[in-house]
Amino acid sequence: MSGVWGNRLKLSIFGESHGKGIGVVIDGLPAGIELDLDFINKEMKRRAPGNKRISTSRKEKDEFNIISGYFNNKATGSPICCMIENTNQKSKDYESIRYIMRPGHADYTGNIKYLGANDYRGGGHFSGRLTAPLVFAGAIAKQILLKKKIVIGSHIKSIGNINDDTFNLTNIGSKELEEIIKKEFPVIDDYKGREMKEAIIKAKEDKDSLGGVIETAIVNLQAGVGEPFFDSIESNIAHMLFSIPGVKGVEFGKGFDITKMKGSEANDKFYIEKGNIKTDTNNNGGINGGISNGMPIIFNTAFKPTPSIGKKQRTVDLSKDENIEFSIKGRHDPCIVPRALVVVESVSAIALLDLIIERNGMSWIV
Amino acid sequence: MSGVWGNRLKLSIFGESHGKGIGVVIDGLPAGIELDLDFINKEMKRRAPGNKRISTSRKEKDEFNIISGYFNNKATGSPICCMIENTNQKSKDYESIRYIMRPGHADYTGNIKYLGANDYRGGGHFSGRLTAPLVFAGAIAKQILLKKKIVIGSHIKSIGNINDDTFNLTNIGSKELEEIIKKEFPVIDDYKGREMKEAIIKAKEDKDSLGGVIETAIVNLQAGVGEPFFDSIESNIAHMLFSIPGVKGVEFGKGFDITKMKGSEANDKFYIEKGNIKTDTNNNGGINGGISNGMPIIFNTAFKPTPSIGKKQRTVDLSKDENIEFSIKGRHDPCIVPRALVVVESVSAIALLDLIIERNGMSWIV
Amino acid sequence: MSGVWGNRLKLSIFGESHGKGIGVVIDGLPAGIELDLDFINKEMKRRAPGNKRISTSRKEKDEFNIISGYFNNKATGSPICCMIENTNQKSKDYESIRYIMRPGHADYTGNIKYLGANDYRGGGHFSGRLTAPLVFAGAIAKQILLKKKIVIGSHIKSIGNINDDTFNLTNIGSKELEEIIKKEFPVIDDYKGREMKEAIIKAKEDKDSLGGVIETAIVNLQAGVGEPFFDSIESNIAHMLFSIPGVKGVEFGKGFDITKMKGSEANDKFYIEKGNIKTDTNNNGGINGGISNGMPIIFNTAFKPTPSIGKKQRTVDLSKDENIEFSIKGRHDPCIVPRALVVVESVSAIALLDLIIERNGMSWIV
Amino acid sequence: MSGVWGNRLKLSIFGESHGKGIGVVIDGLPAGIELDLDFINKEMKRRAPGNKRISTSRKEKDEFNIISGYFNNKATGSPICCMIENTNQKSKDYESIRYIMRPGHADYTGNIKYLGANDYRGGGHFSGRLTAPLVFAGAIAKQILLKKKIVIGSHIKSIGNINDDTFNLTNIGSKELEEIIKKEFPVIDDYKGREMKEAIIKAKEDKDSLGGVIETAIVNLQAGVGEPFFDSIESNIAHMLFSIPGVKGVEFGKGFDITKMKGSEANDKFYIEKGNIKTDTNNNGGINGGISNGMPIIFNTAFKPTPSIGKKQRTVDLSKDENIEFSIKGRHDPCIVPRALVVVESVSAIALLDLIIERNGMSWIV
Repeated sequence: MSGVWGNRLKLSIFGESHGKGIGVVIDGLPAGIELDLDFINKEMKRRAPGNKRISTSRKEKDEFNIISGYFNNKATGSPICCMIENTNQKSKDYESIRYIMRPGHADYTGNIKYLGANDYRGGGHFSGRLTAPLVFAGAIAKQILLKKKIVIGSHIKSIGNINDDTFNLTNIGSKELEEIIKKEFPVIDDYKGREMKEAIIKAKEDKDSLGGVIETAIVNLQAGVGEPFFDSIESNIAHMLFSIPGVKGVEFGKGFDITKMKGSEANDKFYIEKGNIKTDTNNNGGINGGISNGMPIIFNTAFKPTPSIGKKQRTVDLSKDENIEFSIKGRHDPCIVPRALVVVESVSAIALLDLIIERNGMSWIV
Repeated sequence: MSGVWGNRLKLSIFGESHGKGIGVVIDGLPAGIELDLDFINKEMKRRAPGNKRISTSRKEKDEFNIISGYFNNKATGSPICCMIENTNQKSKDYESIRYIMRPGHADYTGNIKYLGANDYRGGGHFSGRLTAPLVFAGAIAKQILLKKKIVIGSHIKSIGNINDDTFNLTNIGSKELEEIIKKEFPVIDDYKGREMKEAIIKAKEDKDSLGGVIETAIVNLQAGVGEPFFDSIESNIAHMLFSIPGVKGVEFGKGFDITKMKGSEANDKFYIEKGNIKTDTNNNGGINGGISNGMPIIFNTAFKPTPSIGKKQRTVDLSKDENIEFSIKGRHDPCIVPRALVVVESVSAIALLDLIIERNGMSWIV
Repeated sequence: MSGVWGNRLKLSIFGESHGKGIGVVIDGLPAGIELDLDFINKEMKRRAPGNKRISTSRKEKDEFNIISGYFNNKATGSPICCMIENTNQKSKDYESIRYIMRPGHADYTGNIKYLGANDYRGGGHFSGRLTAPLVFAGAIAKQILLKKKIVIGSHIKSIGNINDDTFNLTNIGSKELEEIIKKEFPVIDDYKGREMKEAIIKAKEDKDSLGGVIETAIVNLQAGVGEPFFDSIESNIAHMLFSIPGVKGVEFGKGFDITKMKGSEANDKFYIEKGNIKTDTNNNGGINGGISNGMPIIFNTAFKPTPSIGKKQRTVDLSKDENIEFSIKGRHDPCIVPRALVVVESVSAIALLDLIIERNGMSWIV
Repeated sequence: MSGVWGNRLKLSIFGESHGKGIGVVIDGLPAGIELDLDFINKEMKRRAPGNKRISTSRKEKDEFNIISGYFNNKATGSPICCMIENTNQKSKDYESIRYIMRPGHADYTGNIKYLGANDYRGGGHFSGRLTAPLVFAGAIAKQILLKKKIVIGSHIKSIGNINDDTFNLTNIGSKELEEIIKKEFPVIDDYKGREMKEAIIKAKEDKDSLGGVIETAIVNLQAGVGEPFFDSIESNIAHMLFSIPGVKGVEFGKGFDITKMKGSEANDKFYIEKGNIKTDTNNNGGINGGISNGMPIIFNTAFKPTPSIGKKQRTVDLSKDENIEFSIKGRHDPCIVPRALVVVESVSAIALLDLIIERNGMSWIV
């Protein structure tokens, strides 16, 4: 089952890169919440190709059309269907490479899985374009969370070998997150940001691509959200993050680095101060036993370099079962990371809201 | 929902560390498969505390009792319930620390979530003991996979700062995996293994603990398993891995390191050789677009140091809302990693089998 | 969760009677099956208002638009989204009766449930119009079943007090079903059919409405489909039938009448004839223990009279919390049963296909 | 998937009639609720064979053992596993009839479905014994509902051709329900009850069996529970009812009889009285559009005659593929209806509680 997700809040995504359109049905939203369409539009724009020097020159308008579940400016409680028409496809580009299995893409696995019946144009259903409806759904989830002062924000932690600073795991606050999100290139250290952009431009000139890591924080989440074992916060957020094309790693708190600490260092010690219980460090990323402990939720998401590159590559031509050389034409992002921040935040918002409704019911929201 | 998992193969786990017992109900297994009880026992033993110098001195017999779904040596097709009685608890140890929130444990989050009604003895439902029924279920899944020559194996990639070699991502084979699994301390480089054991003994003496990373390979998996987006192989395996207590990071293929490569390096180029399609590198860990490409599936799982340590720690006593100092008594593993290998393999086998049945139906199995 | 259904084949429906449109996303269809659009259109027409004398004078074009999952005349294996635009609404009709809770409708329960935020025009999401996407999905399911010679057909068993003959429970065959489906007014005894139509016309003249019972048969289904307990054929088909607006009763085989038989009469005796095992009677409707036994699956579905009637009725005006009298204007079906046959068949086809894929996997289909 | 059910409250049942035991895991109960074990025992006794003259002479102790999720007299919030050991089986009785497909039973369908690997002793997993864990789970659900004054009760509406009175659909109250439940033979008209018992005794003497209908009412349920379409109250309760062995029909409100009414009669007119909105009739059984309207929920459940009868019957012997005659030995209920009342109430309580938590969250309960 590829496209349905959720326990309390169900998403059903659909569409292909070069078909009529893409979209999502969201079931389980509470009735009566007002949708802030401006906010949704802003979030959609964060995903859209921006600065032409570092992103694709394709124009994707991504205008969303709410088909159902929305009446008199409010969610009706019935399923919300959001459609985004495809308008700027150049499908013919793909006919010539129909049988050429682009390395790093899902051309080959899709061909095998779907017995050759998959829509091969532009990655079809595997396209990163499918993250646009996820951002739509995530923007609604973020609005709902925001009413409870829960803020989700990210910065680019690294591009290739260039590293930004990291969040302060114990003290990161909503203001800091809201400010960094507003940046055209969201890094903590703008000097490093310039280096990153230069590296991306260089990669583009080289007909190559770069990957990177996104660090995300969720602040003001009450303690007690998440479930032991199969619905741990880590399980559910990681499930969603790994559904984003290009993600190859996810870690919470200190993640892989916590394996190099001793227990006496890794354990976040609780203390009580004016009636509030906190921890002095936050190596566990705000989660114990799968459940939030009231500290910021922190996680890193690793994105591989964009597989679409202009450089000549070897691969197989399935029409002849031959090894060939080819190069990808077309307009591609030399680095997807800057556009992926909002996608990471969106799917995390969805996963988190699902767990919160699981705990608190609809009444918490309205 | 804490304890139910799965689409085609449903697991329902239950139990607490110091209650009457723990167990699992497995629904959706095909009728007629023979269960190899010796193999299940061997797998259970891999999880049991072994070498006393590097693990807990608790004796956990973990004798499983198959209550249902098993008749005349075969699975009947009805749900299999497996019970493991608790026999060696020392519950009184926990009364004195009932209100003391052990750092790094789920005492505090469980208390908040369950309004103080949770079974606080030995971690209750959050206990690592709950992984025993997962190993039981995983052993059955592994048997079924093995019939199709699909082998899952792991080694200890690192303990603290000490690193083993890594698998050869393109060439790792079933023999190599089967041999490493047999080792008393499963590492590739036994010299490094000795260093690791010494580090663990040292940590035990220091009343401290260590973490580490487990590298896992799944070999001989056909191309075409897994779904785009929400049921990608990465999503489903990561979901299960992050439900294991202590896991803080998961990465596939080169994982976080792939972010430092260029696209031209990271892309695994396809080639055809004697009619078989393979890739020359395996940076993507055998997965493109969430679907297996026929190469070995590779992933790393990061375990934090055991939170139970004998060293004095600061924390909060909830009965008085006071900051206190205390130290944990009792018999604990200075490093959980060696016992966790089989747990990692088990939950991966379950997640993978679920996806395979999704694709191929029951008939594939029988 | 109102609009998501299924285990293996997931439906997600959306839309309101007077919104932009209605539709469905179908996830889990096998790749490579050709869609017979003519057949889908024929099925859609069976649901459309027909003979003006016995149905509504509204014109509902119900032209479906396949947005995704369909490429080169085949299902791609990705989710199929089908959109049906709303074109012939007269929404203003409903403003004046916004606070008038029409008896027998979901106006009141929807208002309470959705805190007044529901789309009240024409029943909103509760409208019978939502069955159009179900017919679309059902037509695809029927096509797939038909390839395995499994045929689903229905006739009008009764309208008000006028009864048609019943199917021969042991001998009903695919030809008989296919012929009856073709009829403009599907009854076995056309004389009774004329009586029924006259009764409907009379009800229309009286500004009143009628209900009835639909008898359905599924033939050529192999033995062994369905699951004990929670996924019995009865449970899953009834679940879907009771989701159709207006359904108030479902019975399998002899249904309520079996309660008046003795065990020695009710038990369908097995016999073997030329290697085939059959039963001499079919009081159990082809199902034992929730699982098909190879005999025709038989069930009856009870539809209440259309709640929209022109007669003066008492009810409550929520804007004033007053008891009032009013009458419903507009164009309504005096009896929904003739249009509901295909809806009953459609949801049964979906429920059944889901169970068959559960048993046989995708490979059975392609 | 045979044995897992639920959205918010998940049940996982297991066991066979002649295996080690049967049981259920209940996931999703709120932490902190006290379990009234006496009430659970009383409910279990209502299902146990009672008056020997009208039920089986088997003794089934059905002592439940709560393995997990229960601590200090309260639910901990973790999964509750309840085990019931099998103690009084006479498994050898079944060896001689292993290949004889008992008419009306699931012997044949189970054999086909499970490829002969099913536990054939006493119906195996298909046994009515599996309803004992459902009663355990239902008793907990009923307790929780009772705290909100929601009462579920039933009476025997008919046995064979003998009919009891029916509930007053608009006025049935909790007192009346609680009184009828206490009766040794729960009918409204005790004179009819005596007739029914005599008919059952007669059937037993004739080595035959009887069926019947159970009428159930749920009172004091607030308006607004249930979902449109796939999670209508009717869909969810019917789903569970049809999972009870022997159920062949379910109808809500006037059910099949509503098809004989005109719209003007069938529509339940709303009126307001002292601020409360009610309906003057209750032909829809308290449900409009799948959602409760505040009136009593009313439904009938049809049970077929017990298929186990002592009379000689024809059937097939699968070991020889021959038509044979045989008669069932052993101790069987001549009529299951009296023992089934509590099962009907239990599964309805579970289905309803699931929908209520869906609407109100856990916080509603505690």
